[in-house]
Amino acid sequence: MSVRVGVIGVGMIGQDHIRRITQVLTGGSVTAVNDVDAARAGQVAAGLPSVGQHRAVTHATAQDLIADGNVDAVLVASWGPAHEEQVVAAIAAGKPVFCEKPLAPSSAACQRIMDAEMAAGRRLVQVGFMRRYDAGYRAMKAALDDGGLGAPLLMHCAHRNPSVPDYGFTTEMIISDSAVHEMDVVRWLFGEEIVAASVLTPRRTRQAPEGMQDPLILLLEMAGGVLVDDELFLNAGYGYDVRGEVVCETGTVALADVSEVIVRSGNRHGGRVPVDWRDRFIRAYDAELQEWLNAVAAGTSTGPTSWDGFAAAVVTDAALEALRTGQRTAVSMPERPEFYAK
Amino acid sequence: MSVRVGVIGVGMIGQDHIRRITQVLTGGSVTAVNDVDAARAGQVAAGLPSVGQHRAVTHATAQDLIADGNVDAVLVASWGPAHEEQVVAAIAAGKPVFCEKPLAPSSAACQRIMDAEMAAGRRLVQVGFMRRYDAGYRAMKAALDDGGLGAPLLMHCAHRNPSVPDYGFTTEMIISDSAVHEMDVVRWLFGEEIVAASVLTPRRTRQAPEGMQDPLILLLEMAGGVLVDDELFLNAGYGYDVRGEVVCETGTVALADVSEVIVRSGNRHGGRVPVDWRDRFIRAYDAELQEWLNAVAAGTSTGPTSWDGFAAAVVTDAALEALRTGQRTAVSMPERPEFYAK
Amino acid sequence: MSVRVGVIGVGMIGQDHIRRITQVLTGGSVTAVNDVDAARAGQVAAGLPSVGQHRAVTHATAQDLIADGNVDAVLVASWGPAHEEQVVAAIAAGKPVFCEKPLAPSSAACQRIMDAEMAAGRRLVQVGFMRRYDAGYRAMKAALDDGGLGAPLLMHCAHRNPSVPDYGFTTEMIISDSAVHEMDVVRWLFGEEIVAASVLTPRRTRQAPEGMQDPLILLLEMAGGVLVDDELFLNAGYGYDVRGEVVCETGTVALADVSEVIVRSGNRHGGRVPVDWRDRFIRAYDAELQEWLNAVAAGTSTGPTSWDGFAAAVVTDAALEALRTGQRTAVSMPERPEFYAK
Amino acid sequence: MSVRVGVIGVGMIGQDHIRRITQVLTGGSVTAVNDVDAARAGQVAAGLPSVGQHRAVTHATAQDLIADGNVDAVLVASWGPAHEEQVVAAIAAGKPVFCEKPLAPSSAACQRIMDAEMAAGRRLVQVGFMRRYDAGYRAMKAALDDGGLGAPLLMHCAHRNPSVPDYGFTTEMIISDSAVHEMDVVRWLFGEEIVAASVLTPRRTRQAPEGMQDPLILLLEMAGGVLVDDELFLNAGYGYDVRGEVVCETGTVALADVSEVIVRSGNRHGGRVPVDWRDRFIRAYDAELQEWLNAVAAGTSTGPTSWDGFAAAVVTDAALEALRTGQRTAVSMPERPEFYAK
Repeated sequence: MSVRVGVIGVGMIGQDHIRRITQVLTGGSVTAVNDVDAARAGQVAAGLPSVGQHRAVTHATAQDLIADGNVDAVLVASWGPAHEEQVVAAIAAGKPVFCEKPLAPSSAACQRIMDAEMAAGRRLVQVGFMRRYDAGYRAMKAALDDGGLGAPLLMHCAHRNPSVPDYGFTTEMIISDSAVHEMDVVRWLFGEEIVAASVLTPRRTRQAPEGMQDPLILLLEMAGGVLVDDELFLNAGYGYDVRGEVVCETGTVALADVSEVIVRSGNRHGGRVPVDWRDRFIRAYDAELQEWLNAVAAGTSTGPTSWDGFAAAVVTDAALEALRTGQRTAVSMPERPEFYAK
Repeated sequence: MSVRVGVIGVGMIGQDHIRRITQVLTGGSVTAVNDVDAARAGQVAAGLPSVGQHRAVTHATAQDLIADGNVDAVLVASWGPAHEEQVVAAIAAGKPVFCEKPLAPSSAACQRIMDAEMAAGRRLVQVGFMRRYDAGYRAMKAALDDGGLGAPLLMHCAHRNPSVPDYGFTTEMIISDSAVHEMDVVRWLFGEEIVAASVLTPRRTRQAPEGMQDPLILLLEMAGGVLVDDELFLNAGYGYDVRGEVVCETGTVALADVSEVIVRSGNRHGGRVPVDWRDRFIRAYDAELQEWLNAVAAGTSTGPTSWDGFAAAVVTDAALEALRTGQRTAVSMPERPEFYAK
Repeated sequence: MSVRVGVIGVGMIGQDHIRRITQVLTGGSVTAVNDVDAARAGQVAAGLPSVGQHRAVTHATAQDLIADGNVDAVLVASWGPAHEEQVVAAIAAGKPVFCEKPLAPSSAACQRIMDAEMAAGRRLVQVGFMRRYDAGYRAMKAALDDGGLGAPLLMHCAHRNPSVPDYGFTTEMIISDSAVHEMDVVRWLFGEEIVAASVLTPRRTRQAPEGMQDPLILLLEMAGGVLVDDELFLNAGYGYDVRGEVVCETGTVALADVSEVIVRSGNRHGGRVPVDWRDRFIRAYDAELQEWLNAVAAGTSTGPTSWDGFAAAVVTDAALEALRTGQRTAVSMPERPEFYAK
Repeated sequence: MSVRVGVIGVGMIGQDHIRRITQVLTGGSVTAVNDVDAARAGQVAAGLPSVGQHRAVTHATAQDLIADGNVDAVLVASWGPAHEEQVVAAIAAGKPVFCEKPLAPSSAACQRIMDAEMAAGRRLVQVGFMRRYDAGYRAMKAALDDGGLGAPLLMHCAHRNPSVPDYGFTTEMIISDSAVHEMDVVRWLFGEEIVAASVLTPRRTRQAPEGMQDPLILLLEMAGGVLVDDELFLNAGYGYDVRGEVVCETGTVALADVSEVIVRSGNRHGGRVPVDWRDRFIRAYDAELQEWLNAVAAGTSTGPTSWDGFAAAVVTDAALEALRTGQRTAVSMPERPEFYAK
């Protein structure tokens, strides 16, 4: 049976997920939408295909959408501050919910989501850390898990965007919006928690907006000693380039360049660099949402959990403090509840 | 509305397409299957999900399947000699049909399919030349069409399989089963027909089965003068490796290697080579079949046509004669019917 | 002791060798020069460093230079038609001679050089096939000789120049001046002779001068069955690019790209392509001439012999006939004299 | 005229330089050697070619060698603690001296060498920082100086050795012997001094000898704000791999892999990683010593100066303190004397 999805928040990312569910993936349909901009919600709903006799509807509030009997599962793509209330409401309604990252803007809010979920007695939340579904990171994890390279010791990451949006992108957002991807992916790759964070401030690019310190180097220390250095460069200009190399005891594994063809012209040979995150990670988004739909249909859960969203928030807190103070900052991670054991 | 597909032939490739329609793509379902092996057909049907109240059925004959009111469109994945009758029957029933390559084993049979389709008055047939949907070939075509490299002059291709199956794979099958992919892809890349073929026989690998001349070099001459050399090496041992470089007046464009990660170990750095065609082209298969489902749902047609299947068969005839005689052989391509104009 | 070299022909390549001997290599000095352009010879001589008390002199004729008591060995960098007389004279004088390729413009002339050398009773001639000294081709040969890839079956070559000089570069010169490098290198790589040549004429680039057919595909068949296809593209525009891949029974080995750095900018990543032959092969020229100086000092001989120069001329003859006739042409290679056995 | 070199210290590196001067480079000869192991000195001298009538001699002391009338210039390849006395003696004798890195084991000793050189009134010392002569770093510097990438902001380095020698290689030696190369190369690349150093200690490899913390991350801050992270991994196992990427405002430039060929076999494609420093940097050593010989012959000086040796020693001091204390440590670099202005 097809999973009938209600989508809260139909901005760029929400619409992209709707396109995915209706035009790319199998086993899902969109039956209801909600947005703070009711006109936009109406427009999006009007463009949706019918499911059997049922036409997609617009709800005035997220609560109404969650309560809709034609909604089996909820996809939250609203802005961050609204996530907590919406996710908790979905949990209360017993409906599976896919929530875009970050799960919530504070670790306290994430904790409340976990509390609600544990009270409900089953995992209902999947967080949108899509890099875990990228073919490159998957092959990297497979190479690590295979054991042939020995234990991991170090990881070098780079997260480069061509430029930041015009509106007020701040230095802090480099940590909370961009670095959060590496925070999650290293927890997943190495199967352990981050215990400390430091932030270094290299020479500032003149391409950054007034007042923004870009690039940054974020250092993350894993519980087992692996040290991660993460270059965050949001105005790198030349393209969207996500790179990573894990250095192990007897070898290394690195994300490969992703160009489909090599061109030789004008005394150069080489490939293209993606233009943006969508170009780079579109298949990862497809895979994560397909896996969610499959799990919902099967009555199970999969992928990054509320705990993963919470852990990223805790590390984000530490990294923001490290940015503020210039000091290495320990991560105050509580014990993982048994409920979220693998 | 979901396209209800009937699948004729549920061997390896047929089952793979069923998995694709039911577990990967959107907008399709499998409602009926047929196979010369009735037991296999029954087994496959039993594993299929219901569509609404409808359970997938097994038909004793391809004709019955085509006539089934719950079948909107037909996917032919039977063995080559059966294609003509099945495709023509689907056309007669006015149902869209996706036919695995080759369209039919002889150009005469392909001609009869075209005749049936033209008589029916609309395009109903899509042939499974999936390379046109590969991201690498698509980027190559985009680079050519962009014009920045000048006119194409040459293309170097290599088509390497790790090994041939145990049963009697012959030298002729290198042309008819393997090279047929390049025959189609160069017609599509350059937008023109092949006018002559030659076959060269290099030193034979000792890894080939008794009696099989492997590798071959197939030379194809395009109407506009572009010369294609195609290395066909079916017992290349080291992996499944499809390569191509188009040499233009001011630069070249080549398929990139496809490894997701680069590993450094044991004094080597590098990536992996795919293990087989599925590993290499799985996304191309997904894309071609999604496009077919979309076209069927929209009441239109898309992709490689019966004419493309016919043209490949005519070139195959010439190449087989070139193999037999050791001579350059002109391709006797008739005028393309207006019906198949782009 | 330093080898005192007399240089015949001080055009671009002659001067480059003089720079090499006097400023790069060890164990050699230039004591005498000769050129058809006496003024140029004088100018070059004036720029040479003294060797002990001895100042470099200019000779009116090649014969005088060869006879000079301060000349231990002769380097012939004059134009091709003059080679035979000069090399034979050096042999007659019992002096080692390094002769730029081609050894002589005809196989008959090469034969006379061999006759003279055999009559002299010892190898005195080294021919300037510098690719044998290139690190890339050396690594390729090592990989082949190692045996780990099985027997070689095929080789794909490309020889691309950005453009031809303004003066009358002809289609024939693509064979005699450019392809001669691959003719030699495949004989050396595979340790066997070429038995047939064919020439194919793809679509002509509009960048070629009036009347010149560019590119060409030269097919060479080795005695043991290895088939070589060599793309010769003299007006490739984008750079000087020499490529090669040998396909063996269980793997392949290819020349790597030679860029020192990878640049990421403007949505591209990649390296540079050499601008010309000097840029690409400068170290190979250094290595060949150092090895020659070493051999001369040691009273031995090394490197490509008169037989290699002769063999290349015989293959050139066949390839030129193949170009003229459009037919596969057998190479009429005589038995290799025992004198030139490895 | 050939430069007559006296070599102090004929261990591995000293003998390699002798081979270079006598068999590879132009314009130099070795006329005298000295070593703490007199037998080894005698053996090496016996193997040297005569220069004119002169046979290479052995001196009992470095002082005697420096005083030898047949020694025009001195090459110091003894162990570090002996450098100061020998270099100062050469300066006192007014003879040019090439000194292997490090110039001296302490910044105070380096200061005394600079004092002696300034007192002598002309630059006589070249320090063996050979990476400045590597084609990769040269191309990187050219790309930076070209300006097309904007200002440099960051540099990522990795310095990987397969393993450390059996004798007591300590954690401190990772800084003083290995990282010293990056300390010099970043000063040269960016044309400014290092102002602070920090050392991070990732998870330790089990391949390191007892008591050795390997790998390390060394962070260097340049005067203009460029931040350098340098992975130092002396027991990396898989090969000798030196990597670097400079991140600039509009693009990056990285050292390319150095394999001569790409091999495809066993489901892998890729190139080789050098086995050791000689394999990787042999040409850089050739180039630095040729440039030294040329400068000596011309009566000028070139390359890394005593100031560069001193600066590296001062940074080493800071980095060692950072290693000891775990704290970011400011580099106490005095003003550069006018004498050493570029």
